[in-house]
Amino acid sequence: MIDFEYLPEVVQPSPTKIVMVVVDGLGGMKDPNVGKTELEMAHLPNLDFLTTKSSCGVSTPVLPGITPGSGPGHMALFGYDPVKYLLGRGILEGFGIGAEIGTNDVAARGNLCTLKDDGNILDRRANRIRSNQAIEIINLLNRIKIDNVNITVLPVIDYRFVLVINGPGLSSNISETDPQLTGIPIAKSLAKDEGASFTASVVNEFTDKANHVLKNRNLGANGVLLRGFSGVPTLPSFCESYSLNAGAIASYPMYKGIAELIGMEILGEAKNFKEEIDVLKANYDSHDFFFVHYKPADSAGEDGDFRKKVETLEEFDGFLKEIIKMSPDVLVVCGDHSTPSFTSSHSWHPVPFLINSKYGDGYIDTFDESSCLKGSLGRIKAEELMLLIMAHADKLTKFGP
Amino acid sequence: MIDFEYLPEVVQPSPTKIVMVVVDGLGGMKDPNVGKTELEMAHLPNLDFLTTKSSCGVSTPVLPGITPGSGPGHMALFGYDPVKYLLGRGILEGFGIGAEIGTNDVAARGNLCTLKDDGNILDRRANRIRSNQAIEIINLLNRIKIDNVNITVLPVIDYRFVLVINGPGLSSNISETDPQLTGIPIAKSLAKDEGASFTASVVNEFTDKANHVLKNRNLGANGVLLRGFSGVPTLPSFCESYSLNAGAIASYPMYKGIAELIGMEILGEAKNFKEEIDVLKANYDSHDFFFVHYKPADSAGEDGDFRKKVETLEEFDGFLKEIIKMSPDVLVVCGDHSTPSFTSSHSWHPVPFLINSKYGDGYIDTFDESSCLKGSLGRIKAEELMLLIMAHADKLTKFGP
Repeated sequence: MIDFEYLPEVVQPSPTKIVMVVVDGLGGMKDPNVGKTELEMAHLPNLDFLTTKSSCGVSTPVLPGITPGSGPGHMALFGYDPVKYLLGRGILEGFGIGAEIGTNDVAARGNLCTLKDDGNILDRRANRIRSNQAIEIINLLNRIKIDNVNITVLPVIDYRFVLVINGPGLSSNISETDPQLTGIPIAKSLAKDEGASFTASVVNEFTDKANHVLKNRNLGANGVLLRGFSGVPTLPSFCESYSLNAGAIASYPMYKGIAELIGMEILGEAKNFKEEIDVLKANYDSHDFFFVHYKPADSAGEDGDFRKKVETLEEFDGFLKEIIKMSPDVLVVCGDHSTPSFTSSHSWHPVPFLINSKYGDGYIDTFDESSCLKGSLGRIKAEELMLLIMAHADKLTKFGP
Repeated sequence: MIDFEYLPEVVQPSPTKIVMVVVDGLGGMKDPNVGKTELEMAHLPNLDFLTTKSSCGVSTPVLPGITPGSGPGHMALFGYDPVKYLLGRGILEGFGIGAEIGTNDVAARGNLCTLKDDGNILDRRANRIRSNQAIEIINLLNRIKIDNVNITVLPVIDYRFVLVINGPGLSSNISETDPQLTGIPIAKSLAKDEGASFTASVVNEFTDKANHVLKNRNLGANGVLLRGFSGVPTLPSFCESYSLNAGAIASYPMYKGIAELIGMEILGEAKNFKEEIDVLKANYDSHDFFFVHYKPADSAGEDGDFRKKVETLEEFDGFLKEIIKMSPDVLVVCGDHSTPSFTSSHSWHPVPFLINSKYGDGYIDTFDESSCLKGSLGRIKAEELMLLIMAHADKLTKFGP
């Protein structure tokens, strides 16, 4: 939680309702051919209307120049220091496929790989073996037995999988078996402290047995590489910290996973944003804070498809009207990071946001990267956004006499 | 003091004079009926003239979204971390009425309250008993004797009072007796560490004796509730830290109290801002830094009176001419926090400021919230303002070789 020790003392109840819409990968960059960013290009009548009644700014997810993954991007938006509360790769990958990961489990991200006869790594991704071929291998891996623990291997996509180890006395404080190089053997996992030696031995046994069971079968992969060992961290509760009854609405498992981890209630089983809005409507009376996640903008940005990203933003704008009609006391539109189609990836650029409430100042009238820079809320750390949202919802009282 | 360990090494003497005018509650918000903020509405020829020869910006008192009390608001302006150096409620309330509070004393804010026959709290504010009625009760409370300590009860206004405990071995690390609820008994004060148990017993004895002496007297209140136990903290000296011979000029006791706490010399006994300017003139040659406090803007904002706040700002503008005539090398106009008449209270909004000196850049020509956002000094933490003031006064030399 944000480094402000008096937060519990200034949080106060208020009968206001907050809807925080996170547009994944919201920010963009000027396309060299068009001379505009995706937000500048898009026709966004509802977003622009909202802007004239809002206070705006841009948020820096972690630090200037630092490009966040989805984990840090969201953690910061929820007011958690994204560095201090960094979630492990195994856990997030597990969340991404909806894996059940218990409090004491250890999860890892795995690659199917190919090994040469001498045991050295030939291809860390097994020639990018496709999902339909990989599933047979995953099934074999799931039959591996190791004393005192349960092993679960879950397919992600193509050569990627998640390993979940369940049992007593586990620790994620072990080294990775993926050396991230070829031409050398798979690394032995080593315990980084005394309490982790059992887990390291489990991981090494799993690796050996996997290599053994896949050997000479011609399945397209004959080894496994593991990294990002992580357990479920204990995090301050979002609901307790802000005294909110918070619900999370998302179509993708990873975002539900993060929200659940910080104590939000997962609402509905929407498959897309249209269904997410239906879930919002259905649960509107029972919660005072809603995190609603819009994914398509990020996907289009990742694909490097400027036109498509513009379309996803315009599509979002249409949906936004439905949320505006519900008249939440505070309506926030923000993003976990930028995903410019120019970079075809997440980027470090600050992300525009608006806070619509009775305190909205309407200093700007267009919602895009350059306009929001001139908004009254200026440049903030994403981690500070929740404080501003709480203030606009009358949920913070005076600090100090 | 601001977290810059090399401050003592960069502070240098310079024959310049600084006048820092703190307009309490300076910042505002657009009034929905008028479409302008108080500063935008007010006719401020002197402030605007000064702006064209100044460098401007906005200051965030604590954190985005956090509304400061007067204590944190002023501590930040003087360059003190407002969270680390949070002053207790008892101390500030005591300062507010000009109470003498010694280094080893403990002060608390008190409420006269009404208790039912069963001892449960009926009204935490004794039906807001008025000062003229409360004074008789205060006099009775002042007669309470407790072994080894001196008890002083000072009236504030209506049901509010300050308790000052003087004696050896006191500690403010005790819990409050005010449960901030009705229908339950007054809480026992508990020591939060071993060294505080004597103070807790004094507080409980005072509470019991107060209830006893007020019982069945029909005075309008029959109990006392105490909170905000605090002692006088040891703070870095403002004068030593900045190598300044600083004088403070204020009409309200609280601001004199804060200034005295950090080692400023309290100048004069002005009753209003006009008299404050006379005190400034009379002491102009003897100090090189003046903190001058203007209160009326905050009071009008607290009253939710847009028109009145505009008038107080215009009145201030007239007085400002007198200060401009004195030609200080550095003239600062700033605020401890915003007090929009729209909220009728302190708020979290950043506060505009100007620094007039030979370095003034005149990037903007109007002094208000939206213009100062575009000033050359941008958005700073209020805690950083003193560094900028010192730089503009040629009182900081190069950091590092």
